[in-house]
Amino acid sequence: MFFVLVDSNTKKHCLPEFEKIIRRDLSLQVISIAAGERQKNLESCQSIWEQLSELGADRQSLLINLGGGVITDIGGFAASTYLRGIPFINFPTSLLGMVDASIGGKTGVNFNGLKNNIGLFNSSSFIGIDHKFLATLPECQLKSGYAEMLKHGLIADAEHWQNLISQDPEKTPTLELIQNSMEIKESVVNQDQKEKGLRKILNFGHTLGHAIESLSLKKDTSPLLHGEAIALGIILETFLSIKTLGFPKQDFKKIKAFILNYYPKRDFNSEDFKDIKQSILKDKKNEAGKVNFVLLHKIGTAQIDCKVPEKLIEEAFEDLKDHKI
Amino acid sequence: MFFVLVDSNTKKHCLPEFEKIIRRDLSLQVISIAAGERQKNLESCQSIWEQLSELGADRQSLLINLGGGVITDIGGFAASTYLRGIPFINFPTSLLGMVDASIGGKTGVNFNGLKNNIGLFNSSSFIGIDHKFLATLPECQLKSGYAEMLKHGLIADAEHWQNLISQDPEKTPTLELIQNSMEIKESVVNQDQKEKGLRKILNFGHTLGHAIESLSLKKDTSPLLHGEAIALGIILETFLSIKTLGFPKQDFKKIKAFILNYYPKRDFNSEDFKDIKQSILKDKKNEAGKVNFVLLHKIGTAQIDCKVPEKLIEEAFEDLKDHKI
Repeated sequence: MFFVLVDSNTKKHCLPEFEKIIRRDLSLQVISIAAGERQKNLESCQSIWEQLSELGADRQSLLINLGGGVITDIGGFAASTYLRGIPFINFPTSLLGMVDASIGGKTGVNFNGLKNNIGLFNSSSFIGIDHKFLATLPECQLKSGYAEMLKHGLIADAEHWQNLISQDPEKTPTLELIQNSMEIKESVVNQDQKEKGLRKILNFGHTLGHAIESLSLKKDTSPLLHGEAIALGIILETFLSIKTLGFPKQDFKKIKAFILNYYPKRDFNSEDFKDIKQSILKDKKNEAGKVNFVLLHKIGTAQIDCKVPEKLIEEAFEDLKDHKI
Repeated sequence: MFFVLVDSNTKKHCLPEFEKIIRRDLSLQVISIAAGERQKNLESCQSIWEQLSELGADRQSLLINLGGGVITDIGGFAASTYLRGIPFINFPTSLLGMVDASIGGKTGVNFNGLKNNIGLFNSSSFIGIDHKFLATLPECQLKSGYAEMLKHGLIADAEHWQNLISQDPEKTPTLELIQNSMEIKESVVNQDQKEKGLRKILNFGHTLGHAIESLSLKKDTSPLLHGEAIALGIILETFLSIKTLGFPKQDFKKIKAFILNYYPKRDFNSEDFKDIKQSILKDKKNEAGKVNFVLLHKIGTAQIDCKVPEKLIEEAFEDLKDHKI
């Protein structure tokens, strides 16, 4: 039996398109959850398990995740744990999903106020990319995915970075740029499926970015999108790279300028900063209570497991405060 | 960091013993949940995740499951999904845990009224067996574990079966009998980790046994223990084996006599039977809506993927009804 997992957005905008491209004789059962990062929780997961169970899904069933990163993350987790695991495939419909979430087998849900705190590593059997789904996305969603592409350039490929900043992140990127990003991510995860070492470089911008995202989910009425939080994380962690690894100050300014030109700004008060410090102490990459950052030597070259004094993190937030370049 | 998961029983009876056998310089953090099969649910799992999180467990942490089958199943699942997976080891303290639950990497929780409906395959890094924990067990718990040992004999080793029925299942079995059972289980799961074929033989007695257990958990004030339900399942599924695979009627009578002599009896009304039929339609071994039974050719030889007419299942319950041999 074939099940397709959608949220209220992809049900409306993507499911009709998807039904056109699959074989007519396949009967699809639709499983639906509410849309948005706030729904990436155990309750939604329970709802998926219940729907699978009630629709009679067995171990020979397949779950097709049709949606953005939230859908592929939560759908992958739900499938991997239903009846001790049924296969799933990802059909990402957002830019973020295509270049990031759908690749590499990270599945999971947010828990206890922490991003992806519960989950597991299990790859989708197949990833389907259809560029035309991007036409349905609002600008902010395009920019959110674009932030991960920027990250790919910064950690692994200076040329990809140059190509990216010569484009407008509010427009649909070319298939070539998308493929470049997918290849960077695939190449990294294939070398280190379970994030023992190299794969951690993909977390550049994410230590502080995730903390900012968690904070925003808790406090803001319209919370930052994942990539919007990561974009701020990229600025902050590049700042940390200057003093820690001698990252060129000129390049930092270019990165900061590009991001502040396109992405939403956010002010942090001392309460927020305390919350962020709490969050990063629970980051999955930490060892023995020490926060591990991924930092940059230069554009295209990253370094994992960097320790940073708390004072420097404060300076990074200070630098971001007035949003000046 | 080292975390030990206990329930209220093993905290009292086993943790002090366990603390004696580990290195003194290891500091253990204790994580505790309520005892019993009814606690093998997502709520308990959330409590474990929360405790791990609050005690600062990171990816370098180890979870030690000290308890019966409920603890090793739920602890294995919680560890496998916390931060996308931390390692765990099993120290089974019940007979059932030693000969069955701790071996073979099946982890999970009950969900939506169904046994182990949510979970995954992930083996413990190590299994520790300490025979003296069995001294703390009540008779009914010994018998519950013994039922799985009986099953091991019936599906794979006629001599083991003969040895088992010459003993009193209300007494602590010898280490040799326990080891025989562990070896049978290990040998099967090593040939088929993910239950694609052979491993299914371990489910003999479990298709109806699980349904009876689920029913009892829902309805009875003191529900049947796992092995007590499986013992009834063994009688019923051996009955099915007579007409389906020509299992010898004389041997069926011996099995039924041994089990009814030691294990609790249970009456099923037509409401119960309806509930059981509903349950078995959701059994994880099913394919395309058909219930797959494991049945016996003879003592020591099992056959997977057997279909059985509903009428015959009714007859099996009918045969059990008056508890006569």
